[in-house]
Amino acid sequence: MKLATLRVDGATRAVRHDGEVLVDLGVPDLGALLGQDGWADRAASATSTDATTYPVDGADFAPVVPTPSKIVCVGLNYRNHIQEMGRDLPEHPTLFAKFADTLIGAGDDIVRPPETDRFDWEVELAVVVGAPVRRARGEEAERAIAGFTVLNDITCRDWQFRTREWLQGKMWDSTTPVGPYLVTPDELPGGVRPELDVRLLVDGEVMQSDSTGDLVFDPVDLVEYVSTVVRLNPGDIIATGTPGGVGHARRPERYLLGGETVVAEIQGVGRLTNRVVKEAAS
Amino acid sequence: MKLATLRVDGATRAVRHDGEVLVDLGVPDLGALLGQDGWADRAASATSTDATTYPVDGADFAPVVPTPSKIVCVGLNYRNHIQEMGRDLPEHPTLFAKFADTLIGAGDDIVRPPETDRFDWEVELAVVVGAPVRRARGEEAERAIAGFTVLNDITCRDWQFRTREWLQGKMWDSTTPVGPYLVTPDELPGGVRPELDVRLLVDGEVMQSDSTGDLVFDPVDLVEYVSTVVRLNPGDIIATGTPGGVGHARRPERYLLGGETVVAEIQGVGRLTNRVVKEAAS
Repeated sequence: MKLATLRVDGATRAVRHDGEVLVDLGVPDLGALLGQDGWADRAASATSTDATTYPVDGADFAPVVPTPSKIVCVGLNYRNHIQEMGRDLPEHPTLFAKFADTLIGAGDDIVRPPETDRFDWEVELAVVVGAPVRRARGEEAERAIAGFTVLNDITCRDWQFRTREWLQGKMWDSTTPVGPYLVTPDELPGGVRPELDVRLLVDGEVMQSDSTGDLVFDPVDLVEYVSTVVRLNPGDIIATGTPGGVGHARRPERYLLGGETVVAEIQGVGRLTNRVVKEAAS
Repeated sequence: MKLATLRVDGATRAVRHDGEVLVDLGVPDLGALLGQDGWADRAASATSTDATTYPVDGADFAPVVPTPSKIVCVGLNYRNHIQEMGRDLPEHPTLFAKFADTLIGAGDDIVRPPETDRFDWEVELAVVVGAPVRRARGEEAERAIAGFTVLNDITCRDWQFRTREWLQGKMWDSTTPVGPYLVTPDELPGGVRPELDVRLLVDGEVMQSDSTGDLVFDPVDLVEYVSTVVRLNPGDIIATGTPGGVGHARRPERYLLGGETVVAEIQGVGRLTNRVVKEAAS
């Protein structure tokens, strides 16, 4: 299944992709859907003949889960990105956070704040949690993965490196597109450990290109690790890290100035297409 | 005013402290109260004669705001703690995150996970946000401070230093007491830049003792800084950092093993009293 949260008439609706249409699932967003026992059966059983539908063409996607209780991000998780940053392969995943107010939809403009001069991209495979778990291991961790989506962890590098913690470069308001769809693992080669091409393009030029098979810590490892520390709730997002090719690691360095179109795409999962717009200084 | 979120019959209620009683404010928690325009007038006007009341004695406090949309924490913000950690005074605040699932009430047990051997304390003055703001400056930032509370940023030092990001040592489930009261700035010497004694005791022994006047970045500075990056919402919490005297910086190092009682208190704001209990290995 491919599920999404759609903006409709100033509100949102959870929907299932069904050919040319999106079928209304009777709840306002995927966070609400995933919080229900048996959400997968419920989502699968809605039909386009007895529910409201919306055309796929021109769909206005909200963040795939608009208000997750947590967004945990992984740094340094692709072997080749670790190498380009000059680091050793890690024993443990490096974790940092985002808040829901950073998220935007799959087609929304990325707002470039006037306070940064080093506005960079990071395409990531994101895990969406589908069950409440703590200290999940093995099959429980696998079953806790509702599906996957695409996240572009847009980063203000100057703020990321102002202090020894990355957070302030990573939590800028309305800068992180996520979506358009949550794709369930049964649709993907590799299932909960998918091996998929992942790419990021700026104005059509390929900047990042790798396979999610290059992850040091795979999605199941990450559910096990994060849930050791803190409970995971339905709708929570784990962003699994970005491959090589970020602007900061290029020579010369390259950043988003405003006016570009950034495409972040993962084979079989989906594509984010966002224009970068400059926010006026206030 | 002193406001709190009280546990009553398996749910929660927002209350105002009024002598021997807590007066029900008609909403389930302080997050809901602070989201209403004119919350201060509304909270002040509830009277013990026309509203439900609960005794202060034996009150069971929930986290002062149970589900803030963000908890932003500041590292290295007391001059003397920066010095004990061997660092220079910072140009910018160092920020890291917590999630709502880390929070517990002012009298709840602190659960020591079996995965840590270095379980440490950090008493902090916490700002509770009372208005939605972005890029707030000066008086707008001052007015956005609903009040102050006490937070004990219990930390698994071994996990904090596993990788280069602190988050995984800081977000353990149900480890961060916050409360009991939100105290409005008009009640405190120094108002929105309070100068108050702050202390932490383990089994009656003073471990941390300082004044909030020693902060490098004061509460108004922090509202200005954080709201530059991301919107602040009513109920959001900014933990302003901890003074010297943490267990990790002692010689010999000293950690919580289970069975201790930890008191974190700030003059005029309140006191957290929590027993440390060992969580059984699963």
